[in-house]
Amino acid sequence: MERDLLRKLAVQNDTKLVLLVLDGLGGLPHPDTRRTELEQADIPHLDRLAAEGSCGLTIPVAWGVTPGSGPGHLALFGYDPLVHDVGRGVLEAVGIDFPVGPNDVCARGNFCTVDDQGLISDRRAGRIPTEESSVLVERLRTVRLPGVEIFVEPVREHRFVLVLRGEGLHDELDGTDPNREGAAPLPVRALTPKARATADLLNRFIEEARGLLAGEKRANMVLLRGFSRYPHLPSFRDDFKLRAAAIAVYPMYRGLARLCGFTSLPGGGAFADELQTLRDHWGEFDFFFVHYKKTDAAGEDGDFERKVHAIEELDAQLPQLLDLKPDVLVVAGDHATPSVMAAHSWHPVPYLLHSRTARADETEAFNEAQCRKGCLGIIPAVESMSLMLAHAGRLTKYGA
Amino acid sequence: MERDLLRKLAVQNDTKLVLLVLDGLGGLPHPDTRRTELEQADIPHLDRLAAEGSCGLTIPVAWGVTPGSGPGHLALFGYDPLVHDVGRGVLEAVGIDFPVGPNDVCARGNFCTVDDQGLISDRRAGRIPTEESSVLVERLRTVRLPGVEIFVEPVREHRFVLVLRGEGLHDELDGTDPNREGAAPLPVRALTPKARATADLLNRFIEEARGLLAGEKRANMVLLRGFSRYPHLPSFRDDFKLRAAAIAVYPMYRGLARLCGFTSLPGGGAFADELQTLRDHWGEFDFFFVHYKKTDAAGEDGDFERKVHAIEELDAQLPQLLDLKPDVLVVAGDHATPSVMAAHSWHPVPYLLHSRTARADETEAFNEAQCRKGCLGIIPAVESMSLMLAHAGRLTKYGA
Repeated sequence: MERDLLRKLAVQNDTKLVLLVLDGLGGLPHPDTRRTELEQADIPHLDRLAAEGSCGLTIPVAWGVTPGSGPGHLALFGYDPLVHDVGRGVLEAVGIDFPVGPNDVCARGNFCTVDDQGLISDRRAGRIPTEESSVLVERLRTVRLPGVEIFVEPVREHRFVLVLRGEGLHDELDGTDPNREGAAPLPVRALTPKARATADLLNRFIEEARGLLAGEKRANMVLLRGFSRYPHLPSFRDDFKLRAAAIAVYPMYRGLARLCGFTSLPGGGAFADELQTLRDHWGEFDFFFVHYKKTDAAGEDGDFERKVHAIEELDAQLPQLLDLKPDVLVVAGDHATPSVMAAHSWHPVPYLLHSRTARADETEAFNEAQCRKGCLGIIPAVESMSLMLAHAGRLTKYGA
Repeated sequence: MERDLLRKLAVQNDTKLVLLVLDGLGGLPHPDTRRTELEQADIPHLDRLAAEGSCGLTIPVAWGVTPGSGPGHLALFGYDPLVHDVGRGVLEAVGIDFPVGPNDVCARGNFCTVDDQGLISDRRAGRIPTEESSVLVERLRTVRLPGVEIFVEPVREHRFVLVLRGEGLHDELDGTDPNREGAAPLPVRALTPKARATADLLNRFIEEARGLLAGEKRANMVLLRGFSRYPHLPSFRDDFKLRAAAIAVYPMYRGLARLCGFTSLPGGGAFADELQTLRDHWGEFDFFFVHYKKTDAAGEDGDFERKVHAIEELDAQLPQLLDLKPDVLVVAGDHATPSVMAAHSWHPVPYLLHSRTARADETEAFNEAQCRKGCLGIIPAVESMSLMLAHAGRLTKYGA
């Protein structure tokens, strides 16, 4: 339903809602077994939840659209990803707790290597260790440009964040990554006339960076992309009347949730740590977004067996989550990442909603084919919040 | 997805896509056997494609809407038929290669017969042979009207095209066919004040035609409908980055495809000829629209068995198409034409998509009931292009 209507209907109560996102959840059959990762996996707890609850398939953005993780999560948070466009630069910046302000333009940076002709030989500089890239970041911090403050922050391995802060900056800019080795980095190009001055500043930054990194063997150049300003997203807390917490290991997901008004809770690297965080803060929030990254990472690596194992590993620990007895539990994916494609895809994503008021349907197990039989059918992922709130008794009647 | 988004995401690669349209594909059960035309037909190849691929049902325009062939095809080409309205007159004109210009108003004309009181006795003049109607067309070409050029072109049997060319013409006009025998032809009526002058001109043309045809036994009057100007459709080639070819026997389908920017390939009258054309031009294009008319013709005639046979005839020749190994093959209909209704209908239309990345679903055969179990569910036909492009790997990721 429309966000405006959802906002009008939402009321408070003392229910607990959990959105468990298995990143890159959907898959395709293995050519040998003709079974998908979910069909292959031994997942008794997810199967039971599917059998007891209401299932379906979600379309993250639109038919045929392969979403990045940003749009995929925004949809599950109840934000139409075609309306709310959050740039990668801002996502990276908020993900490392950088206090993005209204006059900032953020970019995702990669250290890379270029050869004598200036052609890219490695777009990720061999995934240079964070300790080494942090030293290079220090060097980039010495760049000075007229009229703007410059922030350069290390992220992980070859990644960093660049933030320009100043009046009159614009983000209608194309990135410099040609997306292949053997090509030269592109200049930053303004997509609108008013963005030209910002493009000039960024190109000057890149030339200074080239000089400062010259002679470095491991990483002698930078690539910038995802130029973006702070997006003013409507507040999850205000609109849905939910005190919301995010439990995620990767910075980008924490950052995205914070942009929506979630409190980002500290958590260790393992799912067990995330569950411990969930238990520790169970009393403080109404809505918990719990992010599980391993499924997507394995899918992106094209590692079918590892994805199967990642799903099984999560399933084995589910009872600890179920012991908390959430009033509404949704298990969903932000998009499919079929191992056989080794990439995100556009395929509809398995979805289950478990609550006292969720009708058990013909679904007997949690996988693509079974969820197709579910009573929810094929629904836009953005409807998940409407369903979660409804099943939590948090939506008032519409009309007399 | 929105056309604008599709345009942004579409990229080129070297895949081959085939859209095979069985005109009027969907049906209803025969009262004796309770089986639809597709359920009755022996179609091993279509059944296998359905079993291997992803199936669903399409809504051509909207729930409950019975589409003409124009809107039905536009949707499959990725043009929302509620946004892009292509008049019948223009369709007929471009279908016979008439060079429609920006100042033209086109109409579909029918020769008909009227009795002594001027009431219609046969709306199609007994489907008068083309040779005879061509003679009458010559006679209509002698009509002169102030301020406009007049073109009259024969089509087939009782059909012709009338084009008025001149400044300030408008096409907000109602046709003259009362759609039943025993009634008098209606005058052309302007639907807006600015179209009044054009209506006057057309009514003068009709009166002149009545005079010129008086005394003719086979066809002594004309009916005009589908007044329309050249529609400026966005380019299929530019938007989807596809070199597209149309292989169709009937002029209207070729014309419609040309309006979208397809190249219309010459083909003989039989499906075997169409397949030969496909083979001959396989290397030159990325996207092939192949049109099969027999299914609709039989359905419109209310001939259940002939429609069954038409489907079987196509199925038997399918291996020649499959031998080309298209990366994405869609088998679809522009609308249903149930033989028991002897007319187009609004029923959702069986749809199958076959490609390496299409998940096999529970569909075991290609028909209405089986497609309902397909993993695509019931989708707007306009989403077909999104799916074809996605499965061809021709859509980039949306968002970071």
